[in-house]
Parts: sequence; C-alpha cells; structure tokens
Amino acid sequence: MIRIGIVGFGNIARGVQLSVMQNPDMELVAVFTRRPPQTIKGAMAQVYHMNDIPRFKGEIDVMILCGGSAKDLPEQTPQVARMFCTVDSFDTHADIPEYFAKVDEAARKGRRLSLISVGWDPGLFSLNRAYARAVLPQGVDYTFWGDGVSQGHSDAVRRIDGVRAAIQYTIPEKTALEKIRSGETPELSTREKHSRLCYVVAHEGEDRQRIESEIVNMPKYFSDYNTTVKFIDMDEFERDHSRMNHGGFVLRSGITGESSRQIIEYSLKLDSNPEFTASVLTAYARAAYLMANDGETGARTVLDVAPGLLCVQTPEELRAELL
Amino acid sequence: MIRIGIVGFGNIARGVQLSVMQNPDMELVAVFTRRPPQTIKGAMAQVYHMNDIPRFKGEIDVMILCGGSAKDLPEQTPQVARMFCTVDSFDTHADIPEYFAKVDEAARKGRRLSLISVGWDPGLFSLNRAYARAVLPQGVDYTFWGDGVSQGHSDAVRRIDGVRAAIQYTIPEKTALEKIRSGETPELSTREKHSRLCYVVAHEGEDRQRIESEIVNMPKYFSDYNTTVKFIDMDEFERDHSRMNHGGFVLRSGITGESSRQIIEYSLKLDSNPEFTASVLTAYARAAYLMANDGETGARTVLDVAPGLLCVQTPEELRAELL
Repeated sequence: MIRIGIVGFGNIARGVQLSVMQNPDMELVAVFTRRPPQTIKGAMAQVYHMNDIPRFKGEIDVMILCGGSAKDLPEQTPQVARMFCTVDSFDTHADIPEYFAKVDEAARKGRRLSLISVGWDPGLFSLNRAYARAVLPQGVDYTFWGDGVSQGHSDAVRRIDGVRAAIQYTIPEKTALEKIRSGETPELSTREKHSRLCYVVAHEGEDRQRIESEIVNMPKYFSDYNTTVKFIDMDEFERDHSRMNHGGFVLRSGITGESSRQIIEYSLKLDSNPEFTASVLTAYARAAYLMANDGETGARTVLDVAPGLLCVQTPEELRAELL
Repeated sequence: MIRIGIVGFGNIARGVQLSVMQNPDMELVAVFTRRPPQTIKGAMAQVYHMNDIPRFKGEIDVMILCGGSAKDLPEQTPQVARMFCTVDSFDTHADIPEYFAKVDEAARKGRRLSLISVGWDPGLFSLNRAYARAVLPQGVDYTFWGDGVSQGHSDAVRRIDGVRAAIQYTIPEKTALEKIRSGETPELSTREKHSRLCYVVAHEGEDRQRIESEIVNMPKYFSDYNTTVKFIDMDEFERDHSRMNHGGFVLRSGITGESSRQIIEYSLKLDSNPEFTASVLTAYARAAYLMANDGETGARTVLDVAPGLLCVQTPEELRAELL
C-alpha cells in the first residue's frame, strides 16, 4: 500500500480523499492543516496541525500538497520536500522555473523526490503539447480553455462597487476550433479565441449600466474580449452557479512530408475541476512513489514521468491489455 | 547529431526520411533493404543490402525498422537489436507480449535498447488509454478508428472473384461518439461503433449483386457491420482513392467523487497515415538515443518513455515554454 498524506484542506484535498478511495493500492494516513485541526469538517483520516508533519517520517510515502499557488505552495513545498516525497499542482505558469529550482534544492538536500505542477494545465495539457510538438515539429499549437469558471476573473468582477456576487465563465470560440479542425492554421487574436460570460448579482439600487461598463472595459481581464454581462438575482445565482465544471482543448496542426496535414486534438470536459485535478495528483503520487523507490531525487514535472508509472497495472499487464 | 539508419524501404520508411529532415538534431546515414540496393528509387541516403548492417556499428545511433508486422519485424528486429538501438512500429496487438520477449532478449544480449510498437495505435493511442485509465480509475474506455483505409479489409474485398480493384474505409459512428461526449456510457455493439464503406471496381460482365452479397455477408470482416458497397470505374478509383488518410478517437468517460462526470478525448485526423506513423517513430528515436546513452538496455514501449525525452528542447526550455 502507498501511504498518502494530504497537506492543506480545500476543494482539491477533498477530491484527493475521494480519489485515493478509487485506487486499491493506496491508503490515506493523515490530513495536515494550518487551522486548528478540530475545526476541519469532512476529513476522511485523522487531522493534524502542519507542525506535526515531521513526526510522520517513515509513516507516509507521498505527501500531496493541496494549497494555493500564490502563497501556500511556494512556502510549504520546499519545507515538506526536505522530509517527504511530494506531489503538488503549482499552476502559476510564469513562475514555474523559479519554483522548480527551489523545490529541487530542498528535495536534493533531503534526498527525496518532488513532482511539481501536476494537474491538467499545467499537467495533462503540458504533456499533450510536448507529445504533439515532438511528433509534428512543423506546426502550430492552440490551447483553449472552457467552458468553465475562471476564479481570477470572477474575483475581478466581485471587486467592482455595487456587486454583491458574481461568476465568470470562459468560453472557447467554436468557430475558431472548427477552423483549426478543418485544417486551417489561423492566427487568432485574444478576442477570436475566447469570449467571457459574467453572471452578476447587483446590490439593490445600483446602476447596472455602470457596472456592466466597468466590467467590459476592464483592461487585461475583459477589454480584449467579447464579454456578455447578465444580471440575475441571488436565488438564481445560488441555484445555477455553484458548479465547478471546466475543460479545454489542446490542438496541434502540423505538416509532414510535402503537404500532408496532420491534426492532433486533446480535450477535457469536466464536471468538477477540483476533483479532476485531485485525480491527476493521485495518479502521479503512484509515479512519485515508484520513482522515489527507484532512488530518484530532486524535482520533476509530468514531462519526466513515463506514463506506465501512473498505472496500477504491472508493465506486463499494460503491454497485454492496453498497448 | 543523432545518426539514423532505416531498415526496409516502403511507405513508412519514406515518411521517416522526410521526418528526419524536420528534426535539426538528426541525420540520415543509410537505408538498408533486402532487395538489390540499386533497384531502390527515392532514398535520401546511400542504400545498402541488409547484410551490410553489421558494418555500420559505431556509425549509426538508432535503427528505425520500417518493415511489416506480419513477417519482417519478428525476424529482423531481434537480429538488429543485438547490434543497434532500435525503434519499430510492430502493430499486431495480440502478439505484442511474445514479440516484446524476443526483442528484449536480443537487446539485453547486445546490451542495447529497443523501443517496440511505436506509432499511433499501438503508440499514441496506447499512452492516452494509459493516462486516462490512471487518472479516472472508475470509467469506460472507447477507441474508434477512421475515417480511414483498412488494408486488411481492402485485401479481403480484393480476394473476391470478379473484383478488379477495391478499397475499404472504416467510418466511426458519429451518433456513438456524440452519446459518449454528452456523458452517456453506452455498451456499444460492433455495428454501433463503426460502419464500412467499400469502393469496388468489378471486372466486366461480373454479377455485381453477387459481389456485393459476398462482401456484406463475409464473416468477421463485414457481417457484423453496416456495410455499403459502391461500384465505380477504374478512372474514378485511381483518381479519388489513392489517399492514405486515417485517424481515430480514444475516449474515457469516468466518475470522480459522488457523481462528477469527467470526459477525456484524444483524436487524430491524418492526411497521411504512413507519414504520421513515421513522425512518431522519428520522435521516439530521439528518446531511444537518450535512454540508451543513459545506460538502459532491453525492450521498452511508449509506456516506459517520459514525454520530455521525445523533445528537441532541453528540460529547462520545456519547463519555461511549454509546461
């Protein structure tokens, strides 16, 4: 059995708990939190304070870090990586090289293995970009996200004066997708790739036109997109907009030989973004365990992990059943 | 530079030549054939007889074996794997374990590395099945092929009395695909997954009804499918049916947590099946070269290869640009 610990207890951690139950070779040993442990509801193992983590050396094989990329992981992962094999879903693309270097140093010092930036983007989307570029060196890449909720854009709308509640859906443009699938390789502007749809609950008596104008003209977040704003009441908001669905598309359109058009497409359609990210983390926990047992140390990403290592089946079974 | 040799000279070998030209870190050193070398047209390097292969020890890093799976590869790969790092596209799914064992033994004896069954199915489709099953342990897999030519089914039609020329297209059923994409997990009969479309040129005076009946009722090949037979003349056959397009879909529809439906889809739409297979072989030649330089020996499959090893970029570049 691979003994799993969870660090941090939000939506992804809840998903990891459920995912561990789907994997017969894993057991959840403990959950660690910065909050008072007795305040945690819904944990499926004993909850401890993060200060207790060092006590679990030798009792946990892989720590799955479920904190946020902005503040939690840059601080927590280097600490935990000194003592345990870790997996995390650090997802601030631009900061990955710096984060990698920090975690790598910590993991090497502790002679442990750490898999960083595991999830779907970065993660499964990254490796699909890698496979497709390697196979089709002459070609164009496209990544689309959605339909799904963007937390950052929802937050930006909520910060506008007079907004009581808001959610923002990123929507990939079907016409752009269809063009690429049909063999075209268009240069797409930001506006041509995604549109944005906001559902807003305004405080009573607020000027909706002003709110709408502030949203659609907001630089960086909305002004480069076709944005639709729909005002709804709180009942509708709570009833219809609590889902955490998401998804997206990675396409590569390439040319081989003289002029043969070859199109590779990978797509996800997810009812639950955090549960899916959690399932990816859990599968990679198995790979981390196997690589660590094989003596590997330092930081790694999904690009360094052979696909067979994610699987519960033996290499012989995989060759016979699945290849 | 990674020095490449090609063994066998058919459609896939021609594709490998073109693919090597797209990869700036590779050069084609020699082509080997069982035929008299001077009869080979279109080779982009010096052509030698297969008997000359041992003379190239130390001059070629990776041999890409381009022969057929029925007779060529089972005989050639174990011989070449004793002397060279090899990559091949052995694609008889049921015989992979036996083939793996043979090649593994030869490669270990020669202390070389051999990557077997590289292509798109087995190959890229296999690793997408592996990733998707690992991430979604509770779910259902679907693989569809087409639109594209099935060589085996085309041959079967050609063997019928009175048939002068024939080609068979395998067509995935759109209604089945749409059901799965919408979240259903139907149990699909053979007939519900693919249909078959045959273009036939009959010899003059032959009974077309008899030919059509023999086709649609042919056990194993056609009787379990909805098959359409269209009779055309030789001009149309030669004009419209010389393409080697193909493709297909790998889907997994899974459940995480209580009831969140998560759908992963991978698809290929290929103008040239042999050129695409060749491009996959060439990318994996880079991985084979790196793994061999790292001291690995024996047989491996795509499931044993980390995606980053296929890429011409360094790990640092990949993390910064692509992750």
